[in-house]
Amino acid sequence: MPADNAAILPDRAPAIVLVEPQLGENIGAAARAMANFGLSDLRLVAPRDGWPSDKARAAASRADHVIDAAKLYGRCEDAVADLNFVYATTARIRDLPKPVVGPREAIGALRERIGAGQAAGILFGRERWGLTNEEIAVADAIVTFPVNPGFASLNIAQAVLLMSYEWMSAGLAGALPTRSAVPEIDFTPAPKAQLFGLIEHLESALDPTGYFRTPDKKPTMMHNIRAVLQRAGFTVPEIHVLRGVIAALERRHEKQRGEATDG
Amino acid sequence: MPADNAAILPDRAPAIVLVEPQLGENIGAAARAMANFGLSDLRLVAPRDGWPSDKARAAASRADHVIDAAKLYGRCEDAVADLNFVYATTARIRDLPKPVVGPREAIGALRERIGAGQAAGILFGRERWGLTNEEIAVADAIVTFPVNPGFASLNIAQAVLLMSYEWMSAGLAGALPTRSAVPEIDFTPAPKAQLFGLIEHLESALDPTGYFRTPDKKPTMMHNIRAVLQRAGFTVPEIHVLRGVIAALERRHEKQRGEATDG
Repeated sequence: MPADNAAILPDRAPAIVLVEPQLGENIGAAARAMANFGLSDLRLVAPRDGWPSDKARAAASRADHVIDAAKLYGRCEDAVADLNFVYATTARIRDLPKPVVGPREAIGALRERIGAGQAAGILFGRERWGLTNEEIAVADAIVTFPVNPGFASLNIAQAVLLMSYEWMSAGLAGALPTRSAVPEIDFTPAPKAQLFGLIEHLESALDPTGYFRTPDKKPTMMHNIRAVLQRAGFTVPEIHVLRGVIAALERRHEKQRGEATDG
Repeated sequence: MPADNAAILPDRAPAIVLVEPQLGENIGAAARAMANFGLSDLRLVAPRDGWPSDKARAAASRADHVIDAAKLYGRCEDAVADLNFVYATTARIRDLPKPVVGPREAIGALRERIGAGQAAGILFGRERWGLTNEEIAVADAIVTFPVNPGFASLNIAQAVLLMSYEWMSAGLAGALPTRSAVPEIDFTPAPKAQLFGLIEHLESALDPTGYFRTPDKKPTMMHNIRAVLQRAGFTVPEIHVLRGVIAALERRHEKQRGEATDG
């Protein structure tokens, strides 16, 4: 499949269903998270503090298109009525007869289903106690997050962020390598002749300094310098910078000798 | 290799470095995100509203162990001084001579390096305008997030969450490499403090030479030198060789001035 915009931001993407969200701030943060990763179908089931919400809009940080298009439902069942496949997110593993998967696996399955023409969504529960077993019952499978068992405290906006991020990443992974999204930076090592030129320049600068204490030590010391400069894999522009530095340090004695004899 | 607790929550994990964070709430949310995914080394560079912060503690939602252990620094350089390898997170693609990778690729590389015994960290910039080019210069590579180009608005806590989540996910996926699975990294980059020492040494050697023609040119010229030396990834022994070279070139004028005045 060729990498095009449709692959990155498909027309169809999972619906994000927030069930009885309590804080407008969390709804807004969820909308912002969605917008960052190209999702826009936000569904709210009986938000506690009503709808619309100024706090949600403020927290959405300019994701107004998601807030404005949010759909309001009275019951969880209504919010998923048009969907073919639904995941429920849960913090705790529950003893329910449903498949349980991680976020990446869930998104992989959603991409396959949506690619095949299905409508899909993901349920997120209340801040304090998540989804009821009855709400989870409308879902086809469960998503849990790979959190530290000693500190599991994701809020709904964070959970929405992770699922949205996985959605976008899965699209990019299939279609568009990261490198091609950014300007190529050419780290081609310079032709060896330029590296040799740098090494010879440094050697001639060091000769008069006494660095090579005795002639018999010089081969080993030059070998060490050569190894350091070789391994760095300098590019042509980098070698130009370094030769400028060496030339300046060479000139230094001339400048200062001039000062000394002038003085 | 089976996924056991040691693989999920290794003793060593990347440091999270927040550079001049403005809001205590964001520091707290970042700490909470870290705790969820088993990270605990939080470093703060000059938080705007001071430290400790009640707002940070409240937002951390019981991640007190991360807040209590947070370390405070005056400058970005100090915060990374003991690290061998550093990523900088950026929202925009910048024209900087650094490798640019996505979060998953970055975490894969960090797991390899940390598995090989290196200390590593990730820089996150200010809420409003991220990291300066000078701060990015201390990093070895750049991480960008695969966000919707039409709406890119991740905050620092969200960015920390995504990197922490990838860290944990990579551990669960069994991606914690065994020694034999990883190419040996023979060339551990020196701790940043040693690289900074090399750069300062070179700067002080160049100052008297006239290399920095005018004071206003100096910042750009030093930036270029820093970029070249940073990218090379020098080891501790290599830095020793280079400092010996610089010291010799510094002494040169003294030796030759001696000859000149003797003559």
